[in-house]
Amino acid sequence: MATIDVPEQVSVLADAEALRKACKGWGTDEKAIISVLGHRNAVQRKQIRLAYEDLYQEDLIKRLESELSGDFEKAVYRWILDPADRDAVLANVAIKKLSPDHHVIVEISCTRSPEELLAVRRAYQARYKHSLEEDDLRPSEIAPTSIDITTSNRGGQSDSGGLRSSRHIKELLVALVSAFRYDGEEINTRVANSEAKILHEAVKDKEFNHEEIIRILSTRSKMQLMATFNRYRDDHGTTITKNLEGDSGDEFLKTLRATIRCLNDPKKYFEKVLRNSIRRVGTDEDALTRVIVTRAEKDLKDIKELYYKRNSVPLDQAVAKDTSGDYKALLLTLLGKED
Amino acid sequence: MATIDVPEQVSVLADAEALRKACKGWGTDEKAIISVLGHRNAVQRKQIRLAYEDLYQEDLIKRLESELSGDFEKAVYRWILDPADRDAVLANVAIKKLSPDHHVIVEISCTRSPEELLAVRRAYQARYKHSLEEDDLRPSEIAPTSIDITTSNRGGQSDSGGLRSSRHIKELLVALVSAFRYDGEEINTRVANSEAKILHEAVKDKEFNHEEIIRILSTRSKMQLMATFNRYRDDHGTTITKNLEGDSGDEFLKTLRATIRCLNDPKKYFEKVLRNSIRRVGTDEDALTRVIVTRAEKDLKDIKELYYKRNSVPLDQAVAKDTSGDYKALLLTLLGKED
Repeated sequence: MATIDVPEQVSVLADAEALRKACKGWGTDEKAIISVLGHRNAVQRKQIRLAYEDLYQEDLIKRLESELSGDFEKAVYRWILDPADRDAVLANVAIKKLSPDHHVIVEISCTRSPEELLAVRRAYQARYKHSLEEDDLRPSEIAPTSIDITTSNRGGQSDSGGLRSSRHIKELLVALVSAFRYDGEEINTRVANSEAKILHEAVKDKEFNHEEIIRILSTRSKMQLMATFNRYRDDHGTTITKNLEGDSGDEFLKTLRATIRCLNDPKKYFEKVLRNSIRRVGTDEDALTRVIVTRAEKDLKDIKELYYKRNSVPLDQAVAKDTSGDYKALLLTLLGKED
Repeated sequence: MATIDVPEQVSVLADAEALRKACKGWGTDEKAIISVLGHRNAVQRKQIRLAYEDLYQEDLIKRLESELSGDFEKAVYRWILDPADRDAVLANVAIKKLSPDHHVIVEISCTRSPEELLAVRRAYQARYKHSLEEDDLRPSEIAPTSIDITTSNRGGQSDSGGLRSSRHIKELLVALVSAFRYDGEEINTRVANSEAKILHEAVKDKEFNHEEIIRILSTRSKMQLMATFNRYRDDHGTTITKNLEGDSGDEFLKTLRATIRCLNDPKKYFEKVLRNSIRRVGTDEDALTRVIVTRAEKDLKDIKELYYKRNSVPLDQAVAKDTSGDYKALLLTLLGKED
C-alpha cells in the first residue's frame, strides 16, 4: 500500500498557481512546494506540470531545478517525473557514474511489472536516443576490447576474476533489462523441478555457470521463479542466495543475489536498501531518495512495516534522525507522516 | 508497398454473410472465401470475424478450419489472424517442430518493428501462457542438462561443435526475441567504428566469439547496425556475412547470417526465402505461405520486383507453376494478381 496522503478534492489550476507563487520573487517557499507536490499522485503531478506550462509558458521542472538545490532538489526532481521517465533517469544516472551502480538497473528491471519495465525502456529511448540495454556497460571495469575478446574465446580459465565478472554482469544486466516476462498465474511444476536442479548444478562447487543462471533468471515469470526457488530450498535445505555466497569481492555474485532478492521478495529487498542507506556512516541519500520516491505510491506502507519489524525503530523516525531541512520534510511527507 | 487489392467500400456485415453462405450446406465455396478474405486488410478481417461471431454465435476461424484442409486451410488460417497473433502462431509452430525452424524466429524478431515484435510477445503470452523466449530452445539438439553444464564451464574447447552451436543459437534467439531496439534515426559513428572492429576481431581466424556478436546484433538499432556493417565493409573490403561463412554445417553461423540479412535488408532476405521455397524439388509451402501472408500488406510489391530482377521470371508466374487449386488461387490473389 501507498504512503502518500492525497486529498479527495484537488484543483490542478490552484496547485499550479501555488507553485508559481512559491517560486516567484526573492527566495523560494520550499514548504509550499512540499505541501502541494508531496500530496499529489503521479497523474495529478503530470496535470499540474501541464497546467503550469499552459499558464506561464514555462517548464515547471526546469523552474524548480533552478530554484532548489542539493538533495532536496534531486528528490523533488525525481518525485515530480512520471514513474517510467523517473526510472529512465535513475537508470541513466546509475550507469553514468564513475563506478556504475548496477544494483539500480537490477532493481528497476526486476521489481517493476513487465509493462512498467517496457514503459521505462520506451522513456529511456525518448530521452537518450538509444536503448537502455545499449548503455548497460561497466566502463570502469570493462577491459579494452582486444583483451575481452581474447579471453572470452579461451573460456574461463585465462580470465582474471574481475574481467570475467564484468563480462558476466553485463550479460546479466542486458538480459534482465530486455525481459518481458509472462505475468500470469500459470506455472509449470516440471520446469520448476528441472530448473531448481539446473540452478543447483550451476552453483555447486562454486562454478557459477553463468549462462544457465542468466537464462533462467531473465526469461521465467516471477511466479515460476518463486516455484523454482521454493523447490530449490526443499530439495537442498538451503536457499539459492545462500549458495551464491562466495568470494565477497565477486561483483557478479553480488549482482545475482540482488537479482534473486528483487524477483523473489521486492519489499524485503527495499527494506534492506533503506536499512543500509541509513545505517552507514554518511547516509546514502541517493538510495534513500530512490526507494522512498519510487515506492511511495506503491508499497511503501508495507515496506515501513517490514522495517519496523526488522529494526524495532519506525522508519520515519530513522529517516528524521539521518536527514535535515527541506529534504527531511519532503521524505517524511512522502512517508505519510502528518505535519 | 502492399500487393493486396482492397475495394474502397467494404460492408463487414455483407462479408460475414457471404462467408456464412460459403460454408453452409454440403461442400464449401472456396472461391467465395478467397474473393472476400483475399481482398480485405487486417482491420477489416478482424471486423468480419467479430461481425460473424455476433451474427452466428460461431467462431469464424474454427468454422473455416473445419471446412478447409491442407495448404489452403493453413494459408487461410494464417491470413485471417491479426498480424501479431499470426506471428505468435508461426513462432510456436517453428519451435515445436521436431527439427525446430529457428530461421522463423530470427525472421520475426529482426524484420518486424520494435513495437510489432512487442505485440508478438504479448500475443504469444496470451495464447500460450508463457513467454516466447522461454520456448526458444532447440530440443532436438540441446543436450541433457548435465553435459551442457560441464562443457560450458570449461570454455569452448571441450564442446563438440554441435553442442556449442546449439547453446549459442539458443542465446542468440533469446536475445533477438527480447530486443526492443531504439527505432530513431540517430546513430553514433564512433560506436559504428569501434563495433565494426569488435565484430571483425570476433569473426577473424574463424573464432566466432559469440558473446560480443550477440550483444551487438541484439541491442543496437537497425540504423546503427547498418552503419556498423557499412564501416566493416569499408575497412575490410568484404561483408561480415561473407566472413561468417565457415563450416557449412555450422548452424550457429547460418543463424547469424540470417540475422544479419534480416536486419540489414529484409526485402532481399524475403526474396531469397521465396526463391528457395520454390526452387527446391518439392515446394516448401510453409515458407512460401509465410512470406506471402506476412508481407502482402507490407512490402510484397517491392519483394516481387526484387524477385523479378533476380530471377527474370515474375513471382506470380513462378508461384502459379509450383502450386495448384484453391491454395494457388489464394496466393495469387494476395500477390495482387487480377482474377
